[in-house]
Amino acid sequence: MLKIEALERLIHELTRLPGIGPKTAQRLAYHILKSPAEYGQRLSTALLDLRAQVQMCHECFNFTDQNSCYYCLDPHRQHDSLCIVEEPSDIASIEKSQGFRGRYHVLHGAISPLDGVGPDQLKVRELIRRIEEKMDTSQPIREVIFALDSDLEGDTTVLYISRLLQGKGLKLSRIAQGIPIGSDIDYIDDRTINRALLNRTEL
Amino acid sequence: MLKIEALERLIHELTRLPGIGPKTAQRLAYHILKSPAEYGQRLSTALLDLRAQVQMCHECFNFTDQNSCYYCLDPHRQHDSLCIVEEPSDIASIEKSQGFRGRYHVLHGAISPLDGVGPDQLKVRELIRRIEEKMDTSQPIREVIFALDSDLEGDTTVLYISRLLQGKGLKLSRIAQGIPIGSDIDYIDDRTINRALLNRTEL
Repeated sequence: MLKIEALERLIHELTRLPGIGPKTAQRLAYHILKSPAEYGQRLSTALLDLRAQVQMCHECFNFTDQNSCYYCLDPHRQHDSLCIVEEPSDIASIEKSQGFRGRYHVLHGAISPLDGVGPDQLKVRELIRRIEEKMDTSQPIREVIFALDSDLEGDTTVLYISRLLQGKGLKLSRIAQGIPIGSDIDYIDDRTINRALLNRTEL
Repeated sequence: MLKIEALERLIHELTRLPGIGPKTAQRLAYHILKSPAEYGQRLSTALLDLRAQVQMCHECFNFTDQNSCYYCLDPHRQHDSLCIVEEPSDIASIEKSQGFRGRYHVLHGAISPLDGVGPDQLKVRELIRRIEEKMDTSQPIREVIFALDSDLEGDTTVLYISRLLQGKGLKLSRIAQGIPIGSDIDYIDDRTINRALLNRTEL
């Protein structure tokens, strides 16, 4: 319809991004076309640099532009506490909360049989190996905190991994499920309130 | 916060796009990082190709990857009817309606004193010159249809240009303002209903 091959190709590539439909992609492409030429170049370079410079940390599978990631390299972080997350982007949210000062392990997803994702597609084996390798060193892991999404996939993954880790003398926990801070009980769903009642904390 | 320069740079560049906030930009950047490397390369190439291959049509200022745009090159389109639009992207919408078979002229904006956009920032002079140059040829322009946005800037621009074109023997018109097809009168604003009554069409 637009009769310009380069424009249609960019729109096609943009629609592969999550949440970007054909209409939004078209708006973005026209915006880039009307911007100074340097902007398109900077964006293009930033895309290439991303893939060239960023890789996975060989220890925790967070993204990093070095051999190990920022958190694995930081000597001030606790060695004995491991927080398990689904995605590298979850780490930023946990860091902002300032509630955790240990190390991370990124699974890169959660178990989802419907989507064909089993434990082998995730960094589960690497997690078990990491914990076992540290066991007889001077810096053993003592606590594992699951900070996975509060959905069916998250629940399944917590269940699966916690079974694998049982009997290793680790303190296992999952971040609390309950009503969000500042929320109005009127607007919270039944299941969350049920869980919040079950997990009530003593005063 | 993310501690990865290349990732933060891409997010920064993405937030310059319209409708892309920091959270969306972060989600897009992580998605690109998790996609196959070829995707980032294709997107990067598409961005560079866009600026290298696409320019403005010297006749109507639509975007094109040739010297003249698709509509100016098409010999089957009427020479005597000109549709004036604000943006190149408006052309696709008008084409989809199949209600116009003439040529276009893209102003690249509308008069907006508050944003510092006057007639000199738009392709107004080029429009007048185009109409005057054709006047004494075998293919004169006889009709000018304004298909500008139905807002203050659009109104101002229609008024300004129509005054410049007065006395040249042209048929001037603006696309009708009224209630959209399939709409419920309950949900239409007062001004639109007022205009629809004023512009009622005889049966």
